[in-house]
Amino acid sequence: MTHLDNTLRPRSVRAALALGVTALLIVSGLGTARAADGYRLWLRYVPVHGHWLERYRQAATELVPGGPAQPTLRDTQAELERGLSGMLGRALPLAHRVTTNGAILFGTPRGSAVIRSLRLGLARVGSQGYVIRTVRVDGRRATVIAGNSDIGVLYGAFRFLRLMQTRRAVRSLDIVSRPKLRFRILDFWDNLNGTVERGYAGSSIWKWNELPQYLSPRYTAFARACASIGINGVVLNNVNATPYILTPLYLGKIAALAAVLRPYGIRVYLSVPFNAPMTISHLKTANPLDPAVRAWWRAKVAQIYHYVPNFGGFLAKADSEGEPGPAQYGLTQAQGANLFARVLAPYGGIVMWRTFVYSTNPHSEDRVMQAYDIFKPLDGKFDANVILQNKNGPLDFQPREPFNPLFGAMPKTNEMMEVEITKEYLGQQTSLVYLGTLYEEVLRSDTWARGRGSSVARVIDGSLYGERDTGMAGVANIGSDRNWCGSIFNQSNWYVFGRLAWNPNASARAIAADWVRMTFTNNPAFVRPVVHMMMISREAVVDYMDPLGLASQMAAGTHFGPGPWVHPGPHMPPDWSSTYYSRANAEGIGFNRTATGSDAVSQYAPHVAAKFASLRRCPQDLLLWFHHVPWTYRMRSGRTLWDSLLRHYQRGVDTVKHMRRIWAGLSRYVDPQRFRMTAAFLASQQLNAEWWRDASIAYWESISHLPLPPGIAPPPFPLKDYEAFCVPYAGISGAGPACPPYNGPVPY
Amino acid sequence: MTHLDNTLRPRSVRAALALGVTALLIVSGLGTARAADGYRLWLRYVPVHGHWLERYRQAATELVPGGPAQPTLRDTQAELERGLSGMLGRALPLAHRVTTNGAILFGTPRGSAVIRSLRLGLARVGSQGYVIRTVRVDGRRATVIAGNSDIGVLYGAFRFLRLMQTRRAVRSLDIVSRPKLRFRILDFWDNLNGTVERGYAGSSIWKWNELPQYLSPRYTAFARACASIGINGVVLNNVNATPYILTPLYLGKIAALAAVLRPYGIRVYLSVPFNAPMTISHLKTANPLDPAVRAWWRAKVAQIYHYVPNFGGFLAKADSEGEPGPAQYGLTQAQGANLFARVLAPYGGIVMWRTFVYSTNPHSEDRVMQAYDIFKPLDGKFDANVILQNKNGPLDFQPREPFNPLFGAMPKTNEMMEVEITKEYLGQQTSLVYLGTLYEEVLRSDTWARGRGSSVARVIDGSLYGERDTGMAGVANIGSDRNWCGSIFNQSNWYVFGRLAWNPNASARAIAADWVRMTFTNNPAFVRPVVHMMMISREAVVDYMDPLGLASQMAAGTHFGPGPWVHPGPHMPPDWSSTYYSRANAEGIGFNRTATGSDAVSQYAPHVAAKFASLRRCPQDLLLWFHHVPWTYRMRSGRTLWDSLLRHYQRGVDTVKHMRRIWAGLSRYVDPQRFRMTAAFLASQQLNAEWWRDASIAYWESISHLPLPPGIAPPPFPLKDYEAFCVPYAGISGAGPACPPYNGPVPY
Repeated sequence: MTHLDNTLRPRSVRAALALGVTALLIVSGLGTARAADGYRLWLRYVPVHGHWLERYRQAATELVPGGPAQPTLRDTQAELERGLSGMLGRALPLAHRVTTNGAILFGTPRGSAVIRSLRLGLARVGSQGYVIRTVRVDGRRATVIAGNSDIGVLYGAFRFLRLMQTRRAVRSLDIVSRPKLRFRILDFWDNLNGTVERGYAGSSIWKWNELPQYLSPRYTAFARACASIGINGVVLNNVNATPYILTPLYLGKIAALAAVLRPYGIRVYLSVPFNAPMTISHLKTANPLDPAVRAWWRAKVAQIYHYVPNFGGFLAKADSEGEPGPAQYGLTQAQGANLFARVLAPYGGIVMWRTFVYSTNPHSEDRVMQAYDIFKPLDGKFDANVILQNKNGPLDFQPREPFNPLFGAMPKTNEMMEVEITKEYLGQQTSLVYLGTLYEEVLRSDTWARGRGSSVARVIDGSLYGERDTGMAGVANIGSDRNWCGSIFNQSNWYVFGRLAWNPNASARAIAADWVRMTFTNNPAFVRPVVHMMMISREAVVDYMDPLGLASQMAAGTHFGPGPWVHPGPHMPPDWSSTYYSRANAEGIGFNRTATGSDAVSQYAPHVAAKFASLRRCPQDLLLWFHHVPWTYRMRSGRTLWDSLLRHYQRGVDTVKHMRRIWAGLSRYVDPQRFRMTAAFLASQQLNAEWWRDASIAYWESISHLPLPPGIAPPPFPLKDYEAFCVPYAGISGAGPACPPYNGPVPY
Repeated sequence: MTHLDNTLRPRSVRAALALGVTALLIVSGLGTARAADGYRLWLRYVPVHGHWLERYRQAATELVPGGPAQPTLRDTQAELERGLSGMLGRALPLAHRVTTNGAILFGTPRGSAVIRSLRLGLARVGSQGYVIRTVRVDGRRATVIAGNSDIGVLYGAFRFLRLMQTRRAVRSLDIVSRPKLRFRILDFWDNLNGTVERGYAGSSIWKWNELPQYLSPRYTAFARACASIGINGVVLNNVNATPYILTPLYLGKIAALAAVLRPYGIRVYLSVPFNAPMTISHLKTANPLDPAVRAWWRAKVAQIYHYVPNFGGFLAKADSEGEPGPAQYGLTQAQGANLFARVLAPYGGIVMWRTFVYSTNPHSEDRVMQAYDIFKPLDGKFDANVILQNKNGPLDFQPREPFNPLFGAMPKTNEMMEVEITKEYLGQQTSLVYLGTLYEEVLRSDTWARGRGSSVARVIDGSLYGERDTGMAGVANIGSDRNWCGSIFNQSNWYVFGRLAWNPNASARAIAADWVRMTFTNNPAFVRPVVHMMMISREAVVDYMDPLGLASQMAAGTHFGPGPWVHPGPHMPPDWSSTYYSRANAEGIGFNRTATGSDAVSQYAPHVAAKFASLRRCPQDLLLWFHHVPWTYRMRSGRTLWDSLLRHYQRGVDTVKHMRRIWAGLSRYVDPQRFRMTAAFLASQQLNAEWWRDASIAYWESISHLPLPPGIAPPPFPLKDYEAFCVPYAGISGAGPACPPYNGPVPY
């Protein structure tokens, strides 16, 4: 229960403990503080050993703040002190100027004449970037960490610490970095009653009942973690928003939170319901053309800025899944968004307007085409401070989707990307899935919007069309759990999101390696296999859930476990069902989105459309997204589609088993608590994968009526058992059960 | 944010730190492990100083386990090692026999010939008690901790540690203790979706999605804390139960949890819905007379014991607030309870059957009389393994109620008491209310059921009527919050519940002192004022919420904040409204429960009934519970009722201010994190108290039309503002808002 982490404790400390400090560690009683429970995330700052220690000590001998102790600079200094004393085992003296080799000078040219004199070329890094350079000051060798703003300096300090955390040389540095995206935002789908929609890490971290009087130390810890990876915005509440968040009771609480986050460069944003003037103030309409409605929002925004002077702006889910919006008044999405834009503009606030708009009308067109058809014609109609927030794919955060055709399709409109960090459709809390590869795949997808090289990354970083308001939003996977994210490896997805939002061209593999080194150890015997495991983890989930371009085959409601048999019904709109997407029948499987079908391919640039539309040239991993394919179709491998499809499920299970074996061999490098949690979750995941495999195969067999290919084991239970078995409360915290009680034996 | 607790760290440790271990404490990065965040509860085992250290070291020189290392005895040894090394600053050697003065010998006579030979008179302590005695063994002075069972030994070990934690002499011990109640149970109102009904400490501590593969270290920490105060049972799920808890998917998870709790002497119980045979297996009825229903439950119970061999039994809320029950079939509560009793009896399981049964029929009798009228006639009809679970009062966990008239009224029936540890009606998370005084008040109430001296304690401990199956249940205040209970002081209520369930005659004040010493410090400069603060805290809440015997004046739904104006309506049954209880009108206030009114007094023994029925002799603090009293009535003090009532509100506010001042002066004795949280919560509580005072006065003014007495300040807002202002999401986690958005300024 309480695990003292001997493997990770340096010899010097062990020796000191023998002097009688044992008590200090043992007293903890209910779980020792030293237990690595994941709370410290990637900011553990564990002691450095061996030759690195000597090198780093030489490179960090004193701290020289370059400017007055404003909050952010004070926190920067605290972080450097915490990190360096943690890693180097000794406190660094503070100095007013560089007095010795190895000084670390940090600040802005505005705050420090010395930094000004160093001519670091800071113009290149904008308002949030930084330069880290080895320089000579007064004849001494020093490292300068500088930015044009205090926030830039803080980011630089975290970068400098990361160098040591990941055992990079720091003797001769010349690092220049600026964020490629302007808004790097976490969206919290947190309800005011403490539950979290699609949250798998306990309850909301925002403790509204405690605010504004009590500010939990977790808020500061959260802010530090965000700042360490450059996240600079937080949407506090669920996109399915309630009006209460806009009332003075909550604004007072938000003001207190915002003040904690501010020194770390994080602005607060709110999700707002479009009809708030009606629900809060009993206006008869929420029509944006109505002067009373506009006046209401103007006053409300003034009130918000009164409480939160650095308020960021609104996130809106309008005309989507039952939420109110401008369409109710026969108005366009642009007219809705601009209502907010105009009241926020005087304060510099922005509107993030979600394009996740679709109708569940059974007669409507192909669901994945709707957002494009709604928004594309409005290009140029949105105010300058509106950013359209597109999900990465055209459907809804599936294990794999093609990129959203809206990317690149609206040259006169700001577009940002929304991804899920929470693993709603990817096994949720307990599955080990590193999402860096998913994000990277989308970011590198070439839209061909302005010819070759028009990657999604270049759309959202503004380099394709020159937007200034660029951004990326991630639906947070953070909750009240001690380890923040529900599992240790889920932390890597928060981490990689931040890193890619800073630089969408960064490598998912390199980021994974950094995270492993910071979170666990730099020992290559651990780093190499764990990075490997992370890099193959997402494809495993694709394989056992939604292979070959299938999508949305999950159980209804919970989105946990298989549900390929979910079909439309009185309470199941067609485009929420599984069969809508699989289109499986006796002949074949897949959704024909070529010109002979829904023609969704036509929403992509011609070069891309042609590739997707060609049965031969379509990427195999998106095959069934775009094509209805006969079971007997010969794949490039020479196998039939039927054979190939089934082997994907088996491959997914095999990969999980492989991951589990890798992890089992690594216990000596990890403290027991984190080791056991991960091992237990991998055991759960293997059961989950086998359940997915067997249930899916049982279902497809019932449709194709084909014999199982050699090497594919028949599912151990009949299909009806799989249809009956379910996990009733996975999914939405606080929700009712999603299925009737299942009283049979538990298959997995 | 990260607070190193220098005040509480002994000099020896500080010295050792100077040797270079600083890193160990600073590395923690995201909140140091040493920060006193409340996780360790009252089991902190902080180092002892000064003369006590020398004495205790002499009394604890070696550990001698008296028996084979079965799980419980192993955990006992671990606890002694943890506690003693923590407090004494050195590890104790293990020995197979007593080899030196100061040995601590622990075990059972069955496991140890030495303990057998000591003739400790263990017959007196039953299966769960213990003896701690200073003895001589082989010529050496030793302390023996012995019980007839390993669990008794564990309880004794915690008692021994507590002696040191609270600075009692341990040189010459002769302690004999046995629990007066057999079942000492925490009821978790936890839903399977992670929310907690009336929970104010985060989400459920049971992480169903992680079970059975992963067993959080919190479960063990929880079990240790429970065992340290003798709690021996846990009902895992909400009394408003769903059938899912009885399906194999959950039974597998429960089995894993039960295995963790078992070595700590804690059995698992489940809340069950009466109609489970219908909802789980589609039986047409849940009628207990139906053989198919009985067979279903027989099979279900067999299955449960297959998963959990030491399963404890069922808790049932039947025919109550919409839950199904035997009344639907025209059957009695006894017939319902006995259905469960007979299928559980072969396994030794029990049924805890709640008497919280009432009808919301507007034409029904006085709500507080219903349970008595339903259950009293059934005395003798319940099977031997049924225990009726009465709430402490006849209504519902109000700040003050008279004792429940069912206590003592059913001599042929087992009766246990249910109290709330969670502060549903007492300010919830942030208010500082020590409930020891509330529990003590009820336990000491004399029912006169068999003449003078028939206290509630003697009813529930079996000494009045000789029952063997005795018990006390507390609705847990434990959640996923790092500090377990939502605040540090809420922990004291978990603690005092356990201590009083072990010995209902114990003193609330003495227990508070123990808790303060174990949780904070033994420094009398801290202990004295804090115990004082705790002892006055409950009366403060009574004063500013429900003075003079008023009840249920809270806001609807949330039960947070004032709502004296809540009146019956289409969605508000009369007996859920406030006006039903206050009966306030132009003439006076209070519920006439004498013979000229509902005659609820007649449910008490004649001596008690006569006292309650007399306007003069009725205890003033229950006056309005039993009498409708004219505003102008002269109280014993000489003041009018009107004057007196209003002064209670002011006194409540004044007491909170007084508590706040006391705490503000104690910062030097407390680590910053716990100090700040408590200070912030007291600030909240003062606002809450002022809100209650002002809103209540504004409302009573509107009814009585009397001028405010001198010294009572007029409420700063008009009544309509108080009626409009509310906290929409306090109360039930996961629930929707309880009131419309309030867009005005926040009054408190």
